[in-house]
Amino acid sequence: MTAVDPRLSINQATIKHADLATALRVTAEAGVQAIGLWREPVNEVGLATAAQMLTDSGLRFTTHCRGGFFTLPAGPARVAALDDNRRAIEETATLAAAGAAGSTAVLVLVAGGLPEGSRDLIGARERVRDAIGELSTDAAAAGVTLAIEPLHPMYATDRAVVSTLGQALDIAADFDPSVVGAAVDTFHVFWDPQVLEQIARAGREGRIATYQVCDWKTPLAADPLLSRHYTGEGVIDFASLTQAVEATGYDRDIEVEIFNADVWATDPLEAVRRTAATFGSAVSPHLRVPVAG
Amino acid sequence: MTAVDPRLSINQATIKHADLATALRVTAEAGVQAIGLWREPVNEVGLATAAQMLTDSGLRFTTHCRGGFFTLPAGPARVAALDDNRRAIEETATLAAAGAAGSTAVLVLVAGGLPEGSRDLIGARERVRDAIGELSTDAAAAGVTLAIEPLHPMYATDRAVVSTLGQALDIAADFDPSVVGAAVDTFHVFWDPQVLEQIARAGREGRIATYQVCDWKTPLAADPLLSRHYTGEGVIDFASLTQAVEATGYDRDIEVEIFNADVWATDPLEAVRRTAATFGSAVSPHLRVPVAG
Repeated sequence: MTAVDPRLSINQATIKHADLATALRVTAEAGVQAIGLWREPVNEVGLATAAQMLTDSGLRFTTHCRGGFFTLPAGPARVAALDDNRRAIEETATLAAAGAAGSTAVLVLVAGGLPEGSRDLIGARERVRDAIGELSTDAAAAGVTLAIEPLHPMYATDRAVVSTLGQALDIAADFDPSVVGAAVDTFHVFWDPQVLEQIARAGREGRIATYQVCDWKTPLAADPLLSRHYTGEGVIDFASLTQAVEATGYDRDIEVEIFNADVWATDPLEAVRRTAATFGSAVSPHLRVPVAG
Repeated sequence: MTAVDPRLSINQATIKHADLATALRVTAEAGVQAIGLWREPVNEVGLATAAQMLTDSGLRFTTHCRGGFFTLPAGPARVAALDDNRRAIEETATLAAAGAAGSTAVLVLVAGGLPEGSRDLIGARERVRDAIGELSTDAAAAGVTLAIEPLHPMYATDRAVVSTLGQALDIAADFDPSVVGAAVDTFHVFWDPQVLEQIARAGREGRIATYQVCDWKTPLAADPLLSRHYTGEGVIDFASLTQAVEATGYDRDIEVEIFNADVWATDPLEAVRRTAATFGSAVSPHLRVPVAG
């Protein structure tokens, strides 16, 4: 049996139907050392309990998913969204402190799509920048890094008006790199003709808050949100992307985040084991210090 | 009844199930002055016959669709693809000469996706550049402009490794603008944070070979190829895009190209009339010389 890469982190969405206790248990049982959590299962048990469970698991905490939804126009809904993001920042800080040594306090931000009835992408993008400005003080005070996640352009109007790594870095540029960075997710950025130069730029600017991996293949799932695959089972070139990230000096854990109905239908321990095995063959060989086989 | 915009051109794919005779007839009958043709229905009747039918219709010819499929590695399949592109160049020249005054000899190129089993996007993109280099001499001799069409990034691996207007312009930069330009299709480029500056650049560099419009909305059709809509029925901001194209001095016809099973199931005359009406309300107001209402 191959050793599990010590830098692998399981994003909880990969085993979406597992509750927090199950997610922590199967991740540790599979020999994985780190986990990224989602707000809903954390809040299901309550933050204090979740933090204690995380500590007891011995796992590192890598990211909290997710904040964002910043494109609403001024009004009570926007105020409520920003308040909710402040709670997410606090959760992130608490969980990072509860995780094992080497945990990182990173809150992943999905910008949000066009508000109902709007065609104003440019205006929506400006509101993202404004919202991050409002939250940056809270994040800095809590020691949390906000990771702007560019999503694939097919989600530009209904999920995230931030569509490229370059655009995320342009927004982040107004802020300290310890407070605002970017999430580099292979599924969302691999197609970009500028991806390698933008990864290098992100590194130079100290902005790679998290590197996340999963694969892309066609035909897309009928629900394109659920079209993410185990690494190596699609057409993404993890060699060039991973080497580019590593070349920046990135040395954090690497999350696998898969939204896929078939994966979700798998027993969660089995899904984590398969995630580890496919990570080991598709991603680990491209890390600076490959794990021993 | 509103006048039909004199710059509207019907791309034949909008009425996919109509044969060439029907497509020409309903386009003219609806009061539209121009048409873009596809190779298959042209070759169904033969090029000489198609050219005569086009002349008899009195319509302008705007583009021929389509060449491309350039990402194959060296070998007989690639040679055959390039030869087929040379025939498409000849067809384009013949049809442009047969169309009414103001016709344009533009061949739209869809680059092609990753070859079977490949993950090498960068290599595939280099082969696109090489193929265009090989065809540029033929295009120049025939007086045809090759229009590189960036396709939405969701098609990057299976349809077109050219995903942004900026990338298309970078490829085109090696060639004379009369020989190699770009197709600007709203569906494919509207999401791009750089789209307005890249349209301006395309204008400065003399590269806008054709401007094509249709709309985007979510959820996407289960087959994402068929997710194009009448202008104004989705969330694309035709004001900013059309004004940006017009500001470059672009004064050619504007094609509507819709792949949509519901539109295809409509009577073709009705589909053309609806295309004209929706173009009149969503696009015409943003042209420098709006058509009289």
